[in-house]
Amino acid sequence: MPDNSKLDTIRHSASHVMAEAVKALYPDVKLAIGPSIESGFYYDFDMPHVLTVDELPKIEAKMAEIIKKNEKFERSEVEKRDAETRLQEQHEQYKLEMLREIPDNKVTFYKNGSFSDLCRGPHVASTGEIKAFKLLSIAGAYWRGSEKNKMLQRIYGTAFETQADLDAHLKMLEEAEKRDHRKLGPKLDLFDVFQEEAGAGFVYYFPKGAVLRGIIETFLKEEHLKRGYESVIIPHIAKSELWQTSGHWDYYRENMYTMKIDEKDYVIKPMNCPGHILIFKRKPRSYRDLPIKYFELGTVYRYEKSGVLHGLLRVRGFTQDDAHIFCRHDQLQEEITKVLDFVFDMMKIFGFGYEINLSTRPEKFVGTKDNWEHATDALVASLKAKNEKYVIDEGAGVFYGPKIDIKLRDAIGRLWQGPTIQVDFQLPERFDLKYKGEDGKEHRPAMIHRVVLGSVERFIGVLTEHYAGAFPLWLAPVQVQILPIADRHFDYAKTVKDELINSGIRAEIDDRREKIGAKIRDAEMMKSPYMLVMGDKDIEAKTVSVRARGKGDLGAKNLAEFIVSLKEEIASRK
Amino acid sequence: MPDNSKLDTIRHSASHVMAEAVKALYPDVKLAIGPSIESGFYYDFDMPHVLTVDELPKIEAKMAEIIKKNEKFERSEVEKRDAETRLQEQHEQYKLEMLREIPDNKVTFYKNGSFSDLCRGPHVASTGEIKAFKLLSIAGAYWRGSEKNKMLQRIYGTAFETQADLDAHLKMLEEAEKRDHRKLGPKLDLFDVFQEEAGAGFVYYFPKGAVLRGIIETFLKEEHLKRGYESVIIPHIAKSELWQTSGHWDYYRENMYTMKIDEKDYVIKPMNCPGHILIFKRKPRSYRDLPIKYFELGTVYRYEKSGVLHGLLRVRGFTQDDAHIFCRHDQLQEEITKVLDFVFDMMKIFGFGYEINLSTRPEKFVGTKDNWEHATDALVASLKAKNEKYVIDEGAGVFYGPKIDIKLRDAIGRLWQGPTIQVDFQLPERFDLKYKGEDGKEHRPAMIHRVVLGSVERFIGVLTEHYAGAFPLWLAPVQVQILPIADRHFDYAKTVKDELINSGIRAEIDDRREKIGAKIRDAEMMKSPYMLVMGDKDIEAKTVSVRARGKGDLGAKNLAEFIVSLKEEIASRK
Repeated sequence: MPDNSKLDTIRHSASHVMAEAVKALYPDVKLAIGPSIESGFYYDFDMPHVLTVDELPKIEAKMAEIIKKNEKFERSEVEKRDAETRLQEQHEQYKLEMLREIPDNKVTFYKNGSFSDLCRGPHVASTGEIKAFKLLSIAGAYWRGSEKNKMLQRIYGTAFETQADLDAHLKMLEEAEKRDHRKLGPKLDLFDVFQEEAGAGFVYYFPKGAVLRGIIETFLKEEHLKRGYESVIIPHIAKSELWQTSGHWDYYRENMYTMKIDEKDYVIKPMNCPGHILIFKRKPRSYRDLPIKYFELGTVYRYEKSGVLHGLLRVRGFTQDDAHIFCRHDQLQEEITKVLDFVFDMMKIFGFGYEINLSTRPEKFVGTKDNWEHATDALVASLKAKNEKYVIDEGAGVFYGPKIDIKLRDAIGRLWQGPTIQVDFQLPERFDLKYKGEDGKEHRPAMIHRVVLGSVERFIGVLTEHYAGAFPLWLAPVQVQILPIADRHFDYAKTVKDELINSGIRAEIDDRREKIGAKIRDAEMMKSPYMLVMGDKDIEAKTVSVRARGKGDLGAKNLAEFIVSLKEEIASRK
Repeated sequence: MPDNSKLDTIRHSASHVMAEAVKALYPDVKLAIGPSIESGFYYDFDMPHVLTVDELPKIEAKMAEIIKKNEKFERSEVEKRDAETRLQEQHEQYKLEMLREIPDNKVTFYKNGSFSDLCRGPHVASTGEIKAFKLLSIAGAYWRGSEKNKMLQRIYGTAFETQADLDAHLKMLEEAEKRDHRKLGPKLDLFDVFQEEAGAGFVYYFPKGAVLRGIIETFLKEEHLKRGYESVIIPHIAKSELWQTSGHWDYYRENMYTMKIDEKDYVIKPMNCPGHILIFKRKPRSYRDLPIKYFELGTVYRYEKSGVLHGLLRVRGFTQDDAHIFCRHDQLQEEITKVLDFVFDMMKIFGFGYEINLSTRPEKFVGTKDNWEHATDALVASLKAKNEKYVIDEGAGVFYGPKIDIKLRDAIGRLWQGPTIQVDFQLPERFDLKYKGEDGKEHRPAMIHRVVLGSVERFIGVLTEHYAGAFPLWLAPVQVQILPIADRHFDYAKTVKDELINSGIRAEIDDRREKIGAKIRDAEMMKSPYMLVMGDKDIEAKTVSVRARGKGDLGAKNLAEFIVSLKEEIASRK
């Protein structure tokens, strides 16, 4: 990954410049926080009037002035009590609240021009270093993210080292806006979140969306069975004791949905692992039985704050293409290599690029150093054997084992959380898993958690944006849209549809009494890969007039030949 | 259904005779309740020593004495206060508790011989009318079914009008014992409930069980799509408001699992209907769009008292093959007929007999009388058109619409809850569903709730008992078990297995170093439909030596021909 510290510094400085501009324009404003974020920066303000996007150009103009002045960023160290006096005089109540939580005796301020802010830094030397910036949007944001606090006004912006970088980013944003799955989902009649009626963060799949998900799930299941995985099915609810044994009850509880049954605590599963472990444990195991690989399209529920929920990408309930591999330690590398093969096969099919990250042993860890070393070596060796580039994140592993994270790069260059391969030394210990070795003694198996696509919800959201809703033929919920020109063509349309359906092609007839132009427009809008326009000539010649999505008229074709070409295209998964 | 009131009376009288016998043998006993139940009777006792089944013959002998004496059952009406005095003198605290809850001023006692019991009756004239009885088992049972109360001792028995009926019943029980899915499930490595580790009433499917369930679910899904249903997928959690609109929050709450998210009430769905309704409501509908039929293998969670939980038959979480049909009122009969066709097709495939019950309008109801009459006529007409026998349960419908219930009759004559077809006038009203009619005006659609197999869990439990674990070839998780005689036959076994797998046959090799006799015994125990015993001759002749489950050796066969015969048998679903 590129070193983004310079860009972060520029963006953080831009957020100070924005705050300075806002204070200059609206002197009554109170400052909350203004960090740099993944793709830009924001600042939260408490101000008497409600900001509108119409005011952003005015703020941008003011910022441009400040940047032109090339004001120096000056750092000063202040005694905490002096800082308190200063912020009290300025009536900056939010800054005061933050100040009181700083344990040190001295704090730092950064000053540029007339503006000064309690801030740890760092910043660019002077405002002139901010070469390219843009304010993007306004949103409400609760102070400290809690609904119990006051709603503040957040201005989002971004900044880049060059105007060219900024322009490329803005173009990407514009493209992303068009591809937004939260709009495309309902528009293409695939899925939606009924936030008002049924709650935020829970996804409903309409018939076409269920077809899409069904294709992906069936494909995944087949690919898993082919690769020696076995399906299992576990319930969504289990006793808290199971989660106490796994450790989730103590370390993950705030993300778990819990309830009482007969006055005992029960949990709606946030993970599938303990259930799969119970199935592994149901009978004694020998070294000859391993590896055992349990696969499940397992739906899990995890609490997320309402503020971070985002369409299908960040939800409160999702289905993982989850599997757990129970193996001997000497099988780790082979199994990891097989998972990587699986992952890369899938990435290729769906047309994603990727970035690989390897997280190694942190300071606090369970298991022996030997086991960690062995498992980390296995991960590295697997990556090296495949000649894959990766970044090592030293010490960034979770405490129970080393991990490979893979991020998907979509058609417009954005990165999305995807596959993970996690070795786990803890759960085999906590659940006292064992197998009988060739030596006749009991041994502890290793365990690998892995997801290939990750969350099916997130994957479908990402896929929708990746393809901008124009799914390849094998994934398209409706593969062929039949468009009879007039009522007298309906019968022939029906005959053609039946033939397509009998050949396993998903076909629909637009039997509305609309003009053919409108029907074609709607079918293009719904991103149907193929349209068959049915008129008198087709009936006479027993042909179909084919239009391809985005390519227009392909002319009349023999139906049987058309079906053969469709089947080839479907089989190619392109 | 046969009129069981006479049998009920005999059984209830037998429970009094049993209580008399127990009191005679153990004078310290306190009486709780002793009703007749579906297939017999029980009585709950509070007594100082723990009963064992060894004591049942002694109690039976005492009962036989009482029956021989032909004691008269004498009814007497008593003032409530006198009854209280009497029960206080007898220290019958449980009877006293029940007495205090009777609102009437007078209560009745039934006396036979020295025994007298607070009881509403009726009873047979004298104990001699109990011609055939048998005590069956002992179980713990909390007073009033609550874990907070004392654990009492329950003796189960049964009684019949004739010895022949009793003998037939005992034989059926013996057969049922052998078929008990709670034993067969783990033994055939299909499924289990991990009550201790994970909680009562939640089912775990092991790889073979997941294969079985997968076959049934894939088959069901295909059959639904063929019949014009569309798949949808909804989440398991939704806001309480949705359930307030549906009415479940007020009328079904004690069976619902609820929890708080961000301090608001949420529900784990006990039904799929409100979710499917949201999907129906997502866009305006015209009369031309109807019927719309949404299908989902929808997992629901419902509270059941721990005492009634029973393997896969009565659980706390289960998956329904659920669908909701939104149609015009003039389409009701056609849609109901189609559902009946569907149901009868499935019953035939799985080899179940059935009994049909039609429940009509109760005193309290929603919707107009006209609508009820129309819907009930539609149900009746559909049944008549199919020439199906059915029993009308006048006034036994639920308040929101008339219903057809179908009970499955299994291989040993037991009846199980199965398909239901329920017309609903309430939810379309509560959710304000509408469509635009041909007249351009808004109309309210009708709604049908229907399940074909019912609960997939229950169906798999029943199916396991129905087939006694010997699933027909198309359902068998392992269709062909390959049994190499010695190590030198393993390679050929592998070749044969690959050929079977490539032909879509589920095959496994028993590669343990066991004697062939043990391998055959184990494969028979696991109810494998076919076994291939691999020896030198098979390798030489390039044949397979086929054994069929329960039929023994079928001789050597050509593999290709064997595969053809397997495929035919699978396709026949027999």
